[in-house]
Amino acid sequence: VTEPEVSAIAGLGRMDAASLLEAWPILDAEERVEGFELLDSVTAADFFLGLPTREQAELIAQLGIERSRAWVRLLAPDDAADLIQSFPEDQRATVLRLLDPAAYREVLALLVYAEDAAGGLMNPRYMRLRPDITVEVAIRYLRRQAIRGIEVIDYAYVLDPGMRLLGVVSFRELFAAAPDRMVDEVMERDLVTVSEETDQEAVARVLRDEGHLAIPVVDAEGRMKGIVTADDIVDVLQEEATEDIQKIGGTEALDEPYLQISLWRMVRKRGVWLSVLFVGQMLTATAMGFFEDQIAQALVLTLFIPLIISSGGNAGSQAATLVIRAMALGEVRMRDWWRIVRREVAVGLMLGVGLGLIGLLRIVIWESVSHPYGEHFLLVGYVIAVSVVGVVLTGTLAGSMLPLVLRRFGFDPASASAPFVATLVDVTGVLICFTVAAVLLKGTLL
Amino acid sequence: VTEPEVSAIAGLGRMDAASLLEAWPILDAEERVEGFELLDSVTAADFFLGLPTREQAELIAQLGIERSRAWVRLLAPDDAADLIQSFPEDQRATVLRLLDPAAYREVLALLVYAEDAAGGLMNPRYMRLRPDITVEVAIRYLRRQAIRGIEVIDYAYVLDPGMRLLGVVSFRELFAAAPDRMVDEVMERDLVTVSEETDQEAVARVLRDEGHLAIPVVDAEGRMKGIVTADDIVDVLQEEATEDIQKIGGTEALDEPYLQISLWRMVRKRGVWLSVLFVGQMLTATAMGFFEDQIAQALVLTLFIPLIISSGGNAGSQAATLVIRAMALGEVRMRDWWRIVRREVAVGLMLGVGLGLIGLLRIVIWESVSHPYGEHFLLVGYVIAVSVVGVVLTGTLAGSMLPLVLRRFGFDPASASAPFVATLVDVTGVLICFTVAAVLLKGTLL
Repeated sequence: VTEPEVSAIAGLGRMDAASLLEAWPILDAEERVEGFELLDSVTAADFFLGLPTREQAELIAQLGIERSRAWVRLLAPDDAADLIQSFPEDQRATVLRLLDPAAYREVLALLVYAEDAAGGLMNPRYMRLRPDITVEVAIRYLRRQAIRGIEVIDYAYVLDPGMRLLGVVSFRELFAAAPDRMVDEVMERDLVTVSEETDQEAVARVLRDEGHLAIPVVDAEGRMKGIVTADDIVDVLQEEATEDIQKIGGTEALDEPYLQISLWRMVRKRGVWLSVLFVGQMLTATAMGFFEDQIAQALVLTLFIPLIISSGGNAGSQAATLVIRAMALGEVRMRDWWRIVRREVAVGLMLGVGLGLIGLLRIVIWESVSHPYGEHFLLVGYVIAVSVVGVVLTGTLAGSMLPLVLRRFGFDPASASAPFVATLVDVTGVLICFTVAAVLLKGTLL
Repeated sequence: VTEPEVSAIAGLGRMDAASLLEAWPILDAEERVEGFELLDSVTAADFFLGLPTREQAELIAQLGIERSRAWVRLLAPDDAADLIQSFPEDQRATVLRLLDPAAYREVLALLVYAEDAAGGLMNPRYMRLRPDITVEVAIRYLRRQAIRGIEVIDYAYVLDPGMRLLGVVSFRELFAAAPDRMVDEVMERDLVTVSEETDQEAVARVLRDEGHLAIPVVDAEGRMKGIVTADDIVDVLQEEATEDIQKIGGTEALDEPYLQISLWRMVRKRGVWLSVLFVGQMLTATAMGFFEDQIAQALVLTLFIPLIISSGGNAGSQAATLVIRAMALGEVRMRDWWRIVRREVAVGLMLGVGLGLIGLLRIVIWESVSHPYGEHFLLVGYVIAVSVVGVVLTGTLAGSMLPLVLRRFGFDPASASAPFVATLVDVTGVLICFTVAAVLLKGTLL
């Protein structure tokens, strides 16, 4: 399929970045290198910096790590650390050695942090100032720092000789201040910082609440380690949301674009959960097997089994996704569990009663039109209505508590996927339904 | 419940922002105003700016709009526009009139844009330069601009006299350049811009791909209108992901934190979809009604109905969420539909055959242990296996195409929620299952 594009590229001689970017998603690894090598060096540098980390790594692997020194050295330390972490462990040292000695040390320091913590996200280069200089001197000094490749210059951080963070001054404030005032007179001392271990979702929340473009990272002694910038957080949020959404939908996180992941990996990521759910769902067959005699006697009930149990599954999926998202946003914490239980019992009862009434109505209407349910139709209707209330309540409770339980035991709350909750509730639904039937239909249908 | 916190607040006399922020989520509207009014004016200003737009609006409504001039005037124009849009239509003019004349005009101009387009997100204040001045003059000029409350100063935009955007120069480049060079020699001409109508998710993608902290917004004539900054995008991404996740879970978007939305609104947002699904799911009962004779003859099949149809629902939920997320990330477009079909047919067949074999295996093993399925157990196994293949294939296809179909007709792809797809597939699942049974069991069980 990609034939025409490749020959189009080859025909161009000197490639331009826009055409390459256009064709990129449908090129294979070799074609990408071919196209990339046709770019002139300035364009190639911009192009390389614009690629997602994973594709940078693929390109370098294809180019040959040893030949990629120039490209790797383009990267800011935090991006270089990300790049290195996307290589297999046995190749990381080779990539690391491509860096110049100063960057090597910086990146090495970053690699000790978990990829999803502030330490793994931060850039160790930032604008720094001493508190005891004038605004005029500070501005002159910052102009010199700017030359040394510092990404964000909206804020300058004021440090004492022990690297402890004393305050922050925005460029705006510095520019607006009288030139002869001292930095420590104009700086903001009331700082929001995160630690190196702060989880990236928590960093995102802080950044969002503060409305700043960068958040300083300090260690336990208050020493400045780096800054996390809003653009890094944009990436993080996208990735986290993608993972959560995919898990909620009942797959493992793909970690690759939908159209690019190999068929086989896709099948594995979906097949594992699907098989687990399938085996779990077999319990419904087992449960219904226990009630085979009842089924034979009250055949009309079996028609409604899928309806009843799926209403519990749907209510459970709703509750689970709402709680998972509220947890990710920090709106709900473990200690709120009892408030959630109270809410979900109330909501579950109202929803269950509503749906139960709809179910009862449907039986009554159908019966009055075509008499399919026999003389005990009203009893059948009651069984359905009461079962739906029980099943929906179970669903909302199970769905809302499962994410909390998962987090409590160290798992990702998003693993409480819609299909998982539905399966869980289906099995209990069968039990609830036949128990209600046994009670209400005793002496009539059963 | 909130009694102790309130008295704690009252007891403080002068309130500090941290304690108020701590207690905030559990305070009601009146208590919030009380606490807010205990803050000194500088702290109150910071506190107000840190609140989400919705809570700013609630606070102002409670304080009285006329008394809130000082707070409203604190806001940057884009934030003021958001605030005004969160008031009921008949109060917007009153809030708007609180602004000073210059801000009034700016905010009025912003209000014509859709809230979810670049025009509705952008800040009309940014650093601007002429191309024909020296770097030294530019820096001096920017220092003057900085005094007038411009949020982001990482980039300065170079405009011609007709406000057309010619290029961008980062502060870093400006600081690093020789003072006597001209701005148009150091500026970057190769610009990525968005238009005022660009959807916020597309703006997020551009910002992410570029790795910049701000993206310029230009009109059709290339005139600069404002900038969208990364911190605005952080908010947008969070909100969009929340909406998508909630819809995928089968509720309407809550638009409020889980623990703060009133019970009644929560029930409505969940109940509508749940009722629709419940009524839809009734079709399974209707479908099964058609096969009542077959059910009576091959009762063993009914035990497996929930298992078979739920495997289709699960496979469909997976496919739908993967495609919804890929669409949100821009990885998949309408024109990719045929590639998606091919992928999902392949994946669906592999998954279906895998699950079908598990199902067949289970029948064979159970039968060899306790003979529950009678002499035709192998035939029953085949019916289940073949049905599962058909149902899973239907599920993956329906799940993957539904988001595209929804977008094609102008709906939100995320409405293809896991419960919706599951319900859709359940009904077809019953039909598939009994059709397969009719063919395979003819002359034996049926």
